[in-house]
Amino acid sequence: MVIQKGASLHGIAEVLDLLSKKGIEIKSVDWRGRTLLVTHPNPASADLAQLDQATIVERLVISTPRAQLASREFQNEPSIVRVGTADVGGQKLVIIAGPCSVEGREQFLEVARAAKQSGASLLRGGVFKPRTSPYEFQGLGEEGLRLLAEAREETGLPVVTEVLEPERVKLVAKYADMLQIGARNAQNFSLLTAVGRSRMPVLLKRGMMTTIDEWLQAAEYVLVEGNPNVVLCERGIRTFDKVTRNTLDLAAVPVLRKLTHLPILVDPSHATGNRDLVGPMAKAAIAVGADGLMIETHQSPETALSDSQQQLNLSEFADLMEELEPVAKSVGRRIR
Amino acid sequence: MVIQKGASLHGIAEVLDLLSKKGIEIKSVDWRGRTLLVTHPNPASADLAQLDQATIVERLVISTPRAQLASREFQNEPSIVRVGTADVGGQKLVIIAGPCSVEGREQFLEVARAAKQSGASLLRGGVFKPRTSPYEFQGLGEEGLRLLAEAREETGLPVVTEVLEPERVKLVAKYADMLQIGARNAQNFSLLTAVGRSRMPVLLKRGMMTTIDEWLQAAEYVLVEGNPNVVLCERGIRTFDKVTRNTLDLAAVPVLRKLTHLPILVDPSHATGNRDLVGPMAKAAIAVGADGLMIETHQSPETALSDSQQQLNLSEFADLMEELEPVAKSVGRRIR
Amino acid sequence: MVIQKGASLHGIAEVLDLLSKKGIEIKSVDWRGRTLLVTHPNPASADLAQLDQATIVERLVISTPRAQLASREFQNEPSIVRVGTADVGGQKLVIIAGPCSVEGREQFLEVARAAKQSGASLLRGGVFKPRTSPYEFQGLGEEGLRLLAEAREETGLPVVTEVLEPERVKLVAKYADMLQIGARNAQNFSLLTAVGRSRMPVLLKRGMMTTIDEWLQAAEYVLVEGNPNVVLCERGIRTFDKVTRNTLDLAAVPVLRKLTHLPILVDPSHATGNRDLVGPMAKAAIAVGADGLMIETHQSPETALSDSQQQLNLSEFADLMEELEPVAKSVGRRIR
Amino acid sequence: MVIQKGASLHGIAEVLDLLSKKGIEIKSVDWRGRTLLVTHPNPASADLAQLDQATIVERLVISTPRAQLASREFQNEPSIVRVGTADVGGQKLVIIAGPCSVEGREQFLEVARAAKQSGASLLRGGVFKPRTSPYEFQGLGEEGLRLLAEAREETGLPVVTEVLEPERVKLVAKYADMLQIGARNAQNFSLLTAVGRSRMPVLLKRGMMTTIDEWLQAAEYVLVEGNPNVVLCERGIRTFDKVTRNTLDLAAVPVLRKLTHLPILVDPSHATGNRDLVGPMAKAAIAVGADGLMIETHQSPETALSDSQQQLNLSEFADLMEELEPVAKSVGRRIR
Repeated sequence: MVIQKGASLHGIAEVLDLLSKKGIEIKSVDWRGRTLLVTHPNPASADLAQLDQATIVERLVISTPRAQLASREFQNEPSIVRVGTADVGGQKLVIIAGPCSVEGREQFLEVARAAKQSGASLLRGGVFKPRTSPYEFQGLGEEGLRLLAEAREETGLPVVTEVLEPERVKLVAKYADMLQIGARNAQNFSLLTAVGRSRMPVLLKRGMMTTIDEWLQAAEYVLVEGNPNVVLCERGIRTFDKVTRNTLDLAAVPVLRKLTHLPILVDPSHATGNRDLVGPMAKAAIAVGADGLMIETHQSPETALSDSQQQLNLSEFADLMEELEPVAKSVGRRIR
Repeated sequence: MVIQKGASLHGIAEVLDLLSKKGIEIKSVDWRGRTLLVTHPNPASADLAQLDQATIVERLVISTPRAQLASREFQNEPSIVRVGTADVGGQKLVIIAGPCSVEGREQFLEVARAAKQSGASLLRGGVFKPRTSPYEFQGLGEEGLRLLAEAREETGLPVVTEVLEPERVKLVAKYADMLQIGARNAQNFSLLTAVGRSRMPVLLKRGMMTTIDEWLQAAEYVLVEGNPNVVLCERGIRTFDKVTRNTLDLAAVPVLRKLTHLPILVDPSHATGNRDLVGPMAKAAIAVGADGLMIETHQSPETALSDSQQQLNLSEFADLMEELEPVAKSVGRRIR
Repeated sequence: MVIQKGASLHGIAEVLDLLSKKGIEIKSVDWRGRTLLVTHPNPASADLAQLDQATIVERLVISTPRAQLASREFQNEPSIVRVGTADVGGQKLVIIAGPCSVEGREQFLEVARAAKQSGASLLRGGVFKPRTSPYEFQGLGEEGLRLLAEAREETGLPVVTEVLEPERVKLVAKYADMLQIGARNAQNFSLLTAVGRSRMPVLLKRGMMTTIDEWLQAAEYVLVEGNPNVVLCERGIRTFDKVTRNTLDLAAVPVLRKLTHLPILVDPSHATGNRDLVGPMAKAAIAVGADGLMIETHQSPETALSDSQQQLNLSEFADLMEELEPVAKSVGRRIR
Repeated sequence: MVIQKGASLHGIAEVLDLLSKKGIEIKSVDWRGRTLLVTHPNPASADLAQLDQATIVERLVISTPRAQLASREFQNEPSIVRVGTADVGGQKLVIIAGPCSVEGREQFLEVARAAKQSGASLLRGGVFKPRTSPYEFQGLGEEGLRLLAEAREETGLPVVTEVLEPERVKLVAKYADMLQIGARNAQNFSLLTAVGRSRMPVLLKRGMMTTIDEWLQAAEYVLVEGNPNVVLCERGIRTFDKVTRNTLDLAAVPVLRKLTHLPILVDPSHATGNRDLVGPMAKAAIAVGADGLMIETHQSPETALSDSQQQLNLSEFADLMEELEPVAKSVGRRIR
């Protein structure tokens, strides 16, 4: 339950005290300049009636038990998350492009320019890489962050990059416009709390085995820190079928649409692990109603230091952008 | 390996004998009026060289080891399967509509007329129902088959219905234009053989836990009986996520497109089990490149004897058909 | 709901009529010489009260909604299924041994003798093989059935073999002591009905994708034909993890124990697909409380026509039987 | 590849330089007082021959590509990890008992005493809890750590507890004898590196979605920091079947046994989420060859602040310990 309150909380102290005595936890959240009181679990309706009469309470929201601030009951109107110059969640679809890893200055700037030219609205590039093996390329680190900033300066595109540890959130936030939480950290709660506190836009990928309910609760960890700037990104779940790297669960998009006001992107690159499938799945993602896409691009995918099977080369990406436009129009959206 | 041969087989008897001695099985298939010799496993290249020299052999095809007749190596050009008046696999998408179960004369005829009017090309209706429990409604049986035939007569739409047992194939074939193999029978090999022998068009649904490779081999059971009229239908796989009844694996469509010449449909009704998701997933299926859709429709879904959660009512279906047209156009296809 | 009735049903006709008018289906089942009336769904309690007063009703059972005859509510005492000379479900564990496929007379008789000598209580051998590809070895067919009968005659061990089609049930029943329903036919309802009607002992394997609830309902299809001789066999489910062929779900054993009176076996051979894992998983299956095991054995696994990776050779099986005895004792059971 | 080296590395500098030029990464690891050079990927055999001739190299190990130090090729003899007074991996099984969460002084001490009395060798208790929802009980934090230390002092049992963040590793290491990495952090690589650097014993749980291969590579992240004290713990994977909370993959135990020298425990409490299943699965885990168990115990499970469905009460645990002894003996192990 969410209680929204304007100026002062003193007036409802008595009622809060009552709830607390009944074992209901109350969390005070600073939300877009107002104070919310989030209770858990929902109070009994008798107690609610009492609360309602307290005239100082602006609004009472009874929401799905666990993902409260993420829910449509709390905010019915779709959220638009501003990331630098880009709005995520509006009628215009957001296309995030860029390489799996930032590998060097020339490599990244070339991809960045091409992304800009083809009509992408955000730039991606991994600099801290979560690799299955400790012996694999772990990313360029802070040097890579500087290249992200340089590319933004040159192209004007805001940048998103993954952060792996709570103690690096500040560092990454210094350079990037949006912090990505990767699939392996989908339930790394201390990291979620840390990016919540940063108040930066957060791109929250679904974990490989995360249910929709768990995913929304992970988002709630960010929201409850007073950070409303969360964008969800479906990237495939792990199933018995290994013909694609993961199984892209596109039904998650309309399912989430009913449950939450947060914008929803789709990443067909990681979902399929196969460049030939990126185009068809990108079209499907737009048709199903996603607010945008994250697509890995590279000038020479076959020599990339990671994810060489799934990155599009720059002309493939440019062609795909042309093909996506009519699909977007067919469902009332646009790419440019 | 497939050896295609015209008039006579006598000329290559010697070579076949050689292969047989090396433990290679040879199956003779009557394929569109010609004789194919399908070998398994593929012979060694030395033996192939010898075979190649036998001038009586028209064509040699080395294909993926197990699904040979289904493979692009055997036939690169996409198959178009004719079902009554409808072509499955052409530029025009095929929409199959109708109720989960045929429940009675009035019920079915009304749905059939509405399907026709909204632009569907085929009619569906279950009369033998594979139900999880023996205590659930098992379908109208032969009485239902007669209603299928009556609806076809009235609307001109060909009909597809599920067959559950080899010994009923002839009965169902007497009334229906296309035989459906359901998900639970995806590896019921004697049933696959029986529908293969019927030479009727077959709609082969994917099993809930069937890999792409297993699915194509199931199709091969039909093809190897000399029945080239197989249409695949993705209907969702079973995964850890229960927010939808199954997880619709749309990447299967472009994956199959590369491997096989057979047409591919998508069933968003069974995949999601939720009527609110049927529309978005139908659009996604078209955008990803499916050759058509199977959508459950009913005049009064909430009172239906089966699948009441997922059937569209008749006006919802009519509206959806309107919305699908621009999506189809955006990928170079059409609905009408 | 199950109503158990002795001599005559006439006395309760009125009540049955009432139930029927309320849309409750009633199925009459001939059960161990008595007549049961199984209703679906459960009647309302008001109607039940009325029924209860009808003195001709012997016993009323309100059971889990869908698997009624399989439930503990219907029969609390564990079932013991007699198969030839063997009792499945008693304190003595039942070990079923034999090759994946019957390949020939000498091959099968040798394995049969070794199984007998090592202490197995039943013999297995596939003669109709459900193969993923139509080009793979499909079994010896009726010739194989005759070899099964011959091996039984020589060793005194009852035999179990898989049946794939309703129309072959009679043929197989002529030779075998127990009919196996394989994983791919776990929801082949017409086959389940056919083996139900045969009244033969049935070994019902779990499907790769079958939930516990669906599995019990599949058993119900056999039971509702008046055939109480059903034995369940866990053989692994399909999951994301491919290090073993399937994932053996041993928790299914104690879960089923609470829900059903039917005996439960475990097949570690098909579950793992790897002979090195058969021994450890066999021990675990006994420790968890299974009523026995099905283990594939072959005199020369590496040259077997099917499942060569998972069959134990004859001395490995003999050794394993020695190792299983103390594990059985540690949980109050025995092998011999 | 692992190169083991005694006193000095200077002698092989030339060869290392050669490898490096060929794009092979070399990591120097301080391993039980010696220096290892781990290369990735494995060098070509020609280069290896050259390396072999360098007499200063003590030993060359060619191991599975990615999990090198964890592999049997590197160390064939099973590792025994000492945790306080307990040895994990020896003939005596290790039973870890204790509540899901440390809830207070009296609660924890009572459970600790009972664990000791029933024969447990280690004590568990969560103080930093990774909860799906931000509104759920998050653990007592440092106050809980002090209670862990107090219980150890009183009972003499070493304690294991979960750590969630790299920056808290030092704090937890001050109080606990073993650091647990939970399932949700199975691929939290910065956390794995941090516990690696601590050189403390580490209990590494399998993730819900982690393959065996990924799990071993996660262990490698700890090992490569020179920390050989890693114990693996299977706790169930996520599958389509929801009758248990997770599906306990007991085949993982013998599979890992062949691949790695690290000890392997099993956690039947989290795997099943159901106290009635803990006993049977504990027996199965011992029979399959696990080196021990982690079992949640609580004096009053129904009022526990977390995991109330799965914790055994203290007398259930005492009884279970009695029942496990004969199972352990039947496979050549012991509990006490």
